[in-house]
Amino acid sequence: MKKWMFFSYFLTFQAGFGLSQVMLSEEVGISPWGPDDEIGTLNLMSDQSRLEVLSRIGSGKIYDLGVEYFVGMPSFHALGDPAYKIWMTHTPKGTLIDNPNGMGDAMNAKVSYTGDAISMYTHMGTHIDALNHFGLNNKIWNGFSVDEYLGDKGWKKTGAETIPPIIGRGVLIDVLALKEVEQLPENYRINSSDLKSALEKQGTKLEKGDIVLIRTGQARHYEHADQYLDNYPGINLDAVKWLVEDQEIMLLGADNLSFEAFPPEREDNWVPVHTYLLAEKGVMFIEQMNLESLAQDKVYEFAFIGSSLKLRGASAAPMRPIAIPIQ
Amino acid sequence: MKKWMFFSYFLTFQAGFGLSQVMLSEEVGISPWGPDDEIGTLNLMSDQSRLEVLSRIGSGKIYDLGVEYFVGMPSFHALGDPAYKIWMTHTPKGTLIDNPNGMGDAMNAKVSYTGDAISMYTHMGTHIDALNHFGLNNKIWNGFSVDEYLGDKGWKKTGAETIPPIIGRGVLIDVLALKEVEQLPENYRINSSDLKSALEKQGTKLEKGDIVLIRTGQARHYEHADQYLDNYPGINLDAVKWLVEDQEIMLLGADNLSFEAFPPEREDNWVPVHTYLLAEKGVMFIEQMNLESLAQDKVYEFAFIGSSLKLRGASAAPMRPIAIPIQ
Amino acid sequence: MKKWMFFSYFLTFQAGFGLSQVMLSEEVGISPWGPDDEIGTLNLMSDQSRLEVLSRIGSGKIYDLGVEYFVGMPSFHALGDPAYKIWMTHTPKGTLIDNPNGMGDAMNAKVSYTGDAISMYTHMGTHIDALNHFGLNNKIWNGFSVDEYLGDKGWKKTGAETIPPIIGRGVLIDVLALKEVEQLPENYRINSSDLKSALEKQGTKLEKGDIVLIRTGQARHYEHADQYLDNYPGINLDAVKWLVEDQEIMLLGADNLSFEAFPPEREDNWVPVHTYLLAEKGVMFIEQMNLESLAQDKVYEFAFIGSSLKLRGASAAPMRPIAIPIQ
Amino acid sequence: MKKWMFFSYFLTFQAGFGLSQVMLSEEVGISPWGPDDEIGTLNLMSDQSRLEVLSRIGSGKIYDLGVEYFVGMPSFHALGDPAYKIWMTHTPKGTLIDNPNGMGDAMNAKVSYTGDAISMYTHMGTHIDALNHFGLNNKIWNGFSVDEYLGDKGWKKTGAETIPPIIGRGVLIDVLALKEVEQLPENYRINSSDLKSALEKQGTKLEKGDIVLIRTGQARHYEHADQYLDNYPGINLDAVKWLVEDQEIMLLGADNLSFEAFPPEREDNWVPVHTYLLAEKGVMFIEQMNLESLAQDKVYEFAFIGSSLKLRGASAAPMRPIAIPIQ
Repeated sequence: MKKWMFFSYFLTFQAGFGLSQVMLSEEVGISPWGPDDEIGTLNLMSDQSRLEVLSRIGSGKIYDLGVEYFVGMPSFHALGDPAYKIWMTHTPKGTLIDNPNGMGDAMNAKVSYTGDAISMYTHMGTHIDALNHFGLNNKIWNGFSVDEYLGDKGWKKTGAETIPPIIGRGVLIDVLALKEVEQLPENYRINSSDLKSALEKQGTKLEKGDIVLIRTGQARHYEHADQYLDNYPGINLDAVKWLVEDQEIMLLGADNLSFEAFPPEREDNWVPVHTYLLAEKGVMFIEQMNLESLAQDKVYEFAFIGSSLKLRGASAAPMRPIAIPIQ
Repeated sequence: MKKWMFFSYFLTFQAGFGLSQVMLSEEVGISPWGPDDEIGTLNLMSDQSRLEVLSRIGSGKIYDLGVEYFVGMPSFHALGDPAYKIWMTHTPKGTLIDNPNGMGDAMNAKVSYTGDAISMYTHMGTHIDALNHFGLNNKIWNGFSVDEYLGDKGWKKTGAETIPPIIGRGVLIDVLALKEVEQLPENYRINSSDLKSALEKQGTKLEKGDIVLIRTGQARHYEHADQYLDNYPGINLDAVKWLVEDQEIMLLGADNLSFEAFPPEREDNWVPVHTYLLAEKGVMFIEQMNLESLAQDKVYEFAFIGSSLKLRGASAAPMRPIAIPIQ
Repeated sequence: MKKWMFFSYFLTFQAGFGLSQVMLSEEVGISPWGPDDEIGTLNLMSDQSRLEVLSRIGSGKIYDLGVEYFVGMPSFHALGDPAYKIWMTHTPKGTLIDNPNGMGDAMNAKVSYTGDAISMYTHMGTHIDALNHFGLNNKIWNGFSVDEYLGDKGWKKTGAETIPPIIGRGVLIDVLALKEVEQLPENYRINSSDLKSALEKQGTKLEKGDIVLIRTGQARHYEHADQYLDNYPGINLDAVKWLVEDQEIMLLGADNLSFEAFPPEREDNWVPVHTYLLAEKGVMFIEQMNLESLAQDKVYEFAFIGSSLKLRGASAAPMRPIAIPIQ
Repeated sequence: MKKWMFFSYFLTFQAGFGLSQVMLSEEVGISPWGPDDEIGTLNLMSDQSRLEVLSRIGSGKIYDLGVEYFVGMPSFHALGDPAYKIWMTHTPKGTLIDNPNGMGDAMNAKVSYTGDAISMYTHMGTHIDALNHFGLNNKIWNGFSVDEYLGDKGWKKTGAETIPPIIGRGVLIDVLALKEVEQLPENYRINSSDLKSALEKQGTKLEKGDIVLIRTGQARHYEHADQYLDNYPGINLDAVKWLVEDQEIMLLGADNLSFEAFPPEREDNWVPVHTYLLAEKGVMFIEQMNLESLAQDKVYEFAFIGSSLKLRGASAAPMRPIAIPIQ
């Protein structure tokens, strides 16, 4: 979301929508998987569930659902988070000048050394949000509190290192194809009817434990940050409630930044879809995926295989999941 | 490798080993896959090769081959590369004080926001070395030159973004188990005889296109950087030449830092295994894997599935591969 | 300069101004202070020159010419350079949770530890450009070449660590006051006539070895990055040539980003004032100063005292100079 | 302090010194300069105090009291803080390859652009500790509390941006010269008797409002981090109490890391000198100065002029002060 949009939205917001809306109160969820649970609905995975989907693989063609990291890539900076940076720590010619290993010209002219370093907000590129990313009232999923568990290097609970490798049945819901438009309207909120219609059009049925990836088409603009971030469409509360409560999906994903649409639907919560999924229901989701090749080939069911980096304590982690068509 | 070791080695080195050794000259390899090739032996993968191994999966049990990222994790700093860092960009209480979104106390007390950022050398944790990491005489694999292709944000050729998702038959070679010792000797160089003996003991046969993971046991010390980095064992030139030239493997991996052992075997090259694999043969390899659980369960053949982050231009990328036993 | 401006300028630029302009060729200057010289006109300083100005100090009132560093501060990002970041490495409450020193709750609850870290482009806030910042044809001031002196951690010659503490007679030239406007026109190029008129109006005379600070008034917008960077005015070639060649000043400064105005005056050089000063003449300059309080008090002559951070090899360094009125 | 020292000290520490020591309780001080005060004893400065010392300047010779910043420089990393890093964001040859400005080969071959970026813990090189660096029981100097004033980008009170440029009478106390040894003993604690003896030997008298710089000689090892950080000597509680309470100095400085000596003198406080000065008394201090040239020339009285970077909210800021002999 672009900075000016972000703040102009806030201005509007603060001018106030009335109190006509009746809103349910929001509270963090307590896990049905016990007081030590840190992974929420990913508990739905088992050796059996994984084997089931892996056994259905019928192709060696794979779909790469991850995007590239590069200087200038689109990401969320409205609240001051760092942009992606990469820089050279060693180059063949620099090594010759610097002689950092003390081995001199002949060696360093011959052995051409390249090294590089990166820095980034953890919520960049294709990444999964950990359950600690958004909580309610100083607690996160399963009641873990800031006072007990948040240190200077991240959370002692539900950090990205706790997220297991994820294998499951993946389903693509292609909302852009459903609408038969070039581009979804600005800030369009995808709702449960859209999802149902798209599934029907595709001839796809959801199952408990599914990994549901929603295509808005925004990934087509990924190389152009301004366009990618410009009033993008997202998923609304109604849609995620239907997915989580009726369809009992395990994990969500989308191809836009922030998954949900802005401005938010509640006046008392600027990221209601985030808090609903992460804090209330223990459902993680993946942002900024590339779903274009799946859509192009009309691959709606697949084995989803992905494992995020184990960044200890982190509120998110990058990953590069793949999809393999199943029979 | 610890700094003092690194430099004391150099001291020894510079004092000189004689010229008794007859050494072959080293030159970058030109790819058999054509002048545009940027991925070397990963060209051995095909839809068919992937399907073949995926079809043999007989279990839903998965093995996580990736390590965690945390402040203090072991990595290579002898030449001034940055350590892993993670820091909080947003905390629930800080957000209340800072009000970065301008939405005030009620909102920020309720919506508990956590964000974090990282910085790291790209060669940290479980990561794959891209072909540009080491070249010879200002060229890298396939003859791409520094002058034409190295910019300030990395290489225009063979950057980590070119590395495809990797699926293949994986084979573990457990050298530590072969030796029946608590710990391999300091700076031990694993050679081709070790590999052959271990394969025989395991009853495993290599095939063309394999992904070969070599266990030194060093991952057992991963949480203790000093121990992990202390005169660790590695793979020698003889071993990799046998794997590459005789066995025609596709990809290598090990559980130590730097894959190869130090001090080096050639007086005119401080990383001869790196340049042999990357620059001469176009073979990538993965460092700092966790092979402990595979070893414990004596899982020697498996489907290897892993995809590294697409860091444009980078000389390496983190990844978290998994292994699934095959029939 | 805002990104869109920068690139829209380039677009215009590339569409081309004709070749009607006759332009002098540009080459790096060879220092009159000898082949080892790395500081150019700062050689004009001596114990005597410093004592002379210090002896004229007639007040204990000081003027702070430096700006603050904060997240969101205005700086140059059009070419991908990192923004200013600050983050907490230790907080009192985080220390209690993390126990990084191993000393436990009682100690860490009592001793409230705060630490923080920063990252930044070196050309941020009030900073001085080192002579290596811009060169011509792979050489910098005094003929030092990229091939011989540029390593992976900066230049071996003219790095910021070579810049001495600077004390001299400072002169403010208040161009905004001269024009008697609220704001100089967009992209206004201050020329030598402006400087002469302002000096006359002020009743100030320049002397050889002076430190000349030019006020555009842009510092009034410093807290609002968009406004600060919006088509700001700058100094043109004619002005700096007069200052350097006729007036023999020692050092320059201004209160805007980039010192010179954009778009540039030469079709074959996108930063002709930078290369003229740094590469041809060995004259450093300070950007993003705060000259408001000097202007308000009409302090046109003063002792300038400032010392930039000794960042080894760097192309710039932050500093916080002060001015003290002289008699 | 080296990591192993730090933790071996803690081990000893935790094994416990008995409770035989009778220790005064520690509490943050409330400022005599009022409830809004954020700069403690720097309030002793005035136009008059500054003019007084500036008027006594009798030389144009200046002493540079700042150290260089470079990769590998000595700093405190025992608790995971980042090392100093510098990297190139633009190089002449990289610019030619990358063409980041879109202006093409002719332009980028001619205009040789160098840019660089840094990252660092704020407590590196010659730097001043802000009053928020150490507090007691979740409060800092003048009673400002963590809960009210500590955000994710630092403190809203007493941040480094509040520190004024500092001009005062400086006094060097050369303890190394007093002792007539090559090197002070390991972990030697400089006490008030040492200071008195050194002053007597030097023939120097302290005055209220002085800036007192204590030489341990450690700056001689600055280029060798291991040696610099190896069991360095420091200042003890007795010494600072005498300076602050009896001599009413305004500011302190030393040439070592951490100013105080380790292990600490109190069992219930691991940095008792820090909390005494910053939290109880509102006295800032400068660490890692270079006092060698002053000592060599036996310059014991001087005008001290220094201004730290205005890093908003920070717990410290780098600076490069100078000293000018006075009559």
